[in-house]
Formats: sequence, C-alpha cells, structure tokens
Amino acid sequence: MTVTAVVLALDLLGIFAFAVNGALTAARKVRLDIVGILTLGMVTAVGGGMLRDVLIGAIPPLAFTYWPYLAVAAAGSMIAFFISRPPRFLNRAILVLDAAGLSLFCVAGAYRALNFGLDPGPAIVLGAVTAVGGGTIRDMMIREVPTILVGELYAIPALVGAAVAVAMVQDEVLGVPGAVIGALVCFGIRIAAIRYRLNAPTARTRLDGLS
Amino acid sequence: MTVTAVVLALDLLGIFAFAVNGALTAARKVRLDIVGILTLGMVTAVGGGMLRDVLIGAIPPLAFTYWPYLAVAAAGSMIAFFISRPPRFLNRAILVLDAAGLSLFCVAGAYRALNFGLDPGPAIVLGAVTAVGGGTIRDMMIREVPTILVGELYAIPALVGAAVAVAMVQDEVLGVPGAVIGALVCFGIRIAAIRYRLNAPTARTRLDGLS
Amino acid sequence: MTVTAVVLALDLLGIFAFAVNGALTAARKVRLDIVGILTLGMVTAVGGGMLRDVLIGAIPPLAFTYWPYLAVAAAGSMIAFFISRPPRFLNRAILVLDAAGLSLFCVAGAYRALNFGLDPGPAIVLGAVTAVGGGTIRDMMIREVPTILVGELYAIPALVGAAVAVAMVQDEVLGVPGAVIGALVCFGIRIAAIRYRLNAPTARTRLDGLS
Repeated sequence: MTVTAVVLALDLLGIFAFAVNGALTAARKVRLDIVGILTLGMVTAVGGGMLRDVLIGAIPPLAFTYWPYLAVAAAGSMIAFFISRPPRFLNRAILVLDAAGLSLFCVAGAYRALNFGLDPGPAIVLGAVTAVGGGTIRDMMIREVPTILVGELYAIPALVGAAVAVAMVQDEVLGVPGAVIGALVCFGIRIAAIRYRLNAPTARTRLDGLS
Repeated sequence: MTVTAVVLALDLLGIFAFAVNGALTAARKVRLDIVGILTLGMVTAVGGGMLRDVLIGAIPPLAFTYWPYLAVAAAGSMIAFFISRPPRFLNRAILVLDAAGLSLFCVAGAYRALNFGLDPGPAIVLGAVTAVGGGTIRDMMIREVPTILVGELYAIPALVGAAVAVAMVQDEVLGVPGAVIGALVCFGIRIAAIRYRLNAPTARTRLDGLS
Repeated sequence: MTVTAVVLALDLLGIFAFAVNGALTAARKVRLDIVGILTLGMVTAVGGGMLRDVLIGAIPPLAFTYWPYLAVAAAGSMIAFFISRPPRFLNRAILVLDAAGLSLFCVAGAYRALNFGLDPGPAIVLGAVTAVGGGTIRDMMIREVPTILVGELYAIPALVGAAVAVAMVQDEVLGVPGAVIGALVCFGIRIAAIRYRLNAPTARTRLDGLS
C-alpha cells in the first residue's frame, strides 16, 4: 500500500518533469507543430513506463488504465508548447527537472518490476529502462542518437539508483526509505555528471588514430 | 458480432491501403530491395494494429492469429513493388488511399480497445495510435521524421474520428453508425487538410527569429 | 524437453554472437561510450527475442526470467568493448558470427512461437523477426537504415531457415533434426550471399532513370 502510493507519486512527478523537458528538447531540434510537441512530450513522459509495463506483463500499461498519467503528460507538454523558447535562466531548471525525472523513474520502475515478481537483476535493468526509455524513443523519432549512447553519464546513475533502491528492500517489503535514498543517489550522480562533465569511458579514448 | 465484422472489414481495407501507400512512400525515399519494400509495406499496414494489440493485451496480435491480415499486407506491398514508380494520375489515388486507411484504422482501433475493456479516453488515443503507428515505425526505420510530428493535419483527424466513433457508442453496444460516421469525419478532415494545406499551429509560427 | 534444451543452446550461442557483432558494428558507426556499446550489444543480442516474446505473449520475456541471457549478452558486449578495433583477420570471423546468430535465432524463434501455439505461417515470420529484430532496433538507434531493408540477402535466409525447420516438425513434435537442418540452410544461404554478393531484386534495377 505504502509503496504503491510512493511509486505513484514518484511516477506522476517524473511524468510531469519528463513531459516538459522532453517536449522542449524535441522542439529545439526539429520544427514541430503542436501535435508533434504533444506527441514527443507524452512519449518522453510515458514511453519508458509503457515499455516496462509491456515487458513485465502489466498490460494494459498504467498510462492507459489510470487517467492522471496521460493527463499530466499532456499538461506538461502543453506548458512546453507555450513557453516554447525558454528564457536562459530556465535552462538550468530544465536540466534539473530531467535529472529529477530520471531519479524518480528508475526507482519507481524497479519497484514496479519487483511487484510483478521479477528478480532483483532484471528489476534494476527495468528501472533503468523506465528512466531512459521514453527519452530514447523520442530521440529515435526525431533522428537524434539517443543520449544514453553518447552523452554524459545518464544510464549509469539510473542503474545505480535502481540498484540502491532494490538493495534496500527488506523481507520483500518495498519501502519508502529505499525509494528516497535510491532516487537521491541517482539524482546526485546525475547532477555531478552535468556539473563536472563526467563521461563514461569510450573505446575511442583508448584508440587515437582510428579512422 | 456486427461490430466484429465491421472492425474486420475496416481493418482489411485499411491494411491494403496502408500496405500499398507505405511501400510506395518508402521506396520513394530509400533505395530498397524487395525484402525492404515488403517489410516496410507490412510494417506500415500492420504495425499500428500490433502496437495497439500489445498495449491492450490482445496478444498474440490479430495479425499473427488471423492469416488474412498478413496476406493482405503482403499482397498490397507486392503490388507496390511492381508498380514501383506510380504514374502521375495515381498520386492522388495514393493520397486518398492513405486517408482511407487512416479513417478506417482510427475507428477500428478505438472500437477494439473498447472491446478489451479500456475507457473511452485511452480508446481514442489507441485509435489514433492504430492509425498513425505503422507509418511512424516505417518513417523511423528509413530515417524520416514521422509525418505526425511535422506534417499537415494527420493525427488530429484520427483523434477526432476515433472520438466521434467512441461518442456514438450507446449502452455499450458498438455499432455500425458510429464506425461509419467516425471514419467519414476523419476522412473529411484529412482530405480537407491535404486540399487546403491546413496545418496544426507550430510553436515557431509564434517565434520568428528563433535560430 | 529435448527441443527446449536445443532452443536454449541455440539461443545462448546466438546471443553471444550477436552481442559481439552488434556492439562492434555500432562502434564502427557512432562514437560511443561504454554504456552505449553495452546497450547496443545487448539490444542486438536480446532485442529480437524480446520482440518475439512480447508478440507471442511470453511475458516477461526469457531475457528477464532466465539470467544467463542478459549475462551472456553483457559478456559479449564487454568483449567487443575491449577488442574495439578488431584486427583485420577478425573481420571474417565477425561476419561468420553474425551469420551464425542469424541461423540460430531464426530456428529458435520459430520453434518458440510454435510452442506458444502459433500457426506455422506466423511462426516462420516470428523466426525471422527474432533473427533480424535486434539488429534492426540497433540500426534505428544509431540512425542507420537497417540492413534488412537495403543489404545483401539477410532476411531471406532467415525466412527460409525458419520455414525448413517448421516444415520438418512432425506430429507436432519439435525435434533436433529440423533445428539443425534449418539453421544450416540459413547459414549456407547467408554465407553464399556474402561471398558472391547476392542481392534481392530491387525496384530500381528495373527502373533506370528514376529521379
């Protein structure tokens, strides 16, 4: 019960954050009409969770059975449509929103997978899939190489946050402390990665003359 | 019973229309071999319905349990392979075919979602997903930005048509009148959009100097 | 029992082959960090099987319920990360690995679909989807037009191999001989296609002056 409420709250916050951020990111890269912005905001916001729900067998996905999901995603996307070209001081807020969405989703996704009976390992992977899935589908739709493949640390904080949250589950009781600490760990790593431009090691850093 | 037959007929017609149109559209953008044309024609034709079926829990999807679906999709794609470079007077027919497929799929998809117990709101969204999903996957495969994101009115007629069809359901009995009128509304809006080059509002139309 | 063991062995071998090959192929096209290489190697290796499992209703997919799948995929991807720029003499080995993965997956996928009660026709299609699905998702993520659409014979050997394996099923007993011969047929066609640069017919070969 408790964890359901926690997962729900995290999910709705994350959906809003990702909808705004996803729609703004998309609008910066491609000339979009209002349907395009709504579509990409909503895909970013609920795409990762839908992918997770399909993969764990929670069908129809939450986004189609619990109306606030789609509504919050649509509202966030519409806000993005109207602010459209965010003033400079908002850029930082948008990055923080995205980090928040990442942190909330990785924990909510991992706990939902555990709830559906998956083992800890796959649950951690599915936490990360929930967190990065929506943005990845959005990037594929607008012909960008997805952030997780090339960017600063993005999937790693999600994996670590999900792993911490899963590790803190005791006697199979999902609890608030694990969720909060897992999300905070993910958030901390992600913000540090942005601030100090941390990158995961690349093969090419070891290979200079590669044609 | 009635509605199942209606959905079925709409679906098969839509599949044929989308297979021909999808394969031709793809062949115009990318140099494809016969497997590529067949694949893209079939993806366009049955991809949206498969996505819907997975999301509503109708697994395996109709396309894998009712053989005419794949057969009609393959036949439409082969026709596209052989006409390949359609004569000019066919271009209009192809656009009309596409509008027909859109109209048939949005209604069939929404009714099928209702049949599987989804609420009207998600059913309307899933009607639109059925209608635009296949073309969107095709566009992603050939590295085009999907029509729904940038094009003339495309998702909106599908949403409106699905909404009309869903609104005309009475006492939970899906019926022929709702299906026909919903499809006609979608078709009318889509054809008007093509003819008068109607577009959805874009964020950029409100922002001139955006770099 | 027998066939389960056979499918399992084929699957694990195919997963390893595809993980190494998929990660190397991706790294040649896009500048990736270690997360990107792991992601793409794993997507190539388990993506086709996940797509098949979702479409036949085997949810959660094997890759999330049987840990060796993800482990072997991760191991293969890590090997690819460390060899990174394979010496010339390995290039042939990599192509052969890929052909092996294709052959193993088309048979394993078709048999698994039959096991879940699908008809022979859809089972053959799903065998090919299993074989080419992972590489196709990988190509879409790195903005390449998928090999199946434009390349040398790739989907055709998978379809033929799956068809042979399905045709050799007797009295509904899936057996080792069908699996082995189906895989060998696929492998033989694929290797011949590489060696003699066989291509599927294209529409454009029949149409010279196409703008």
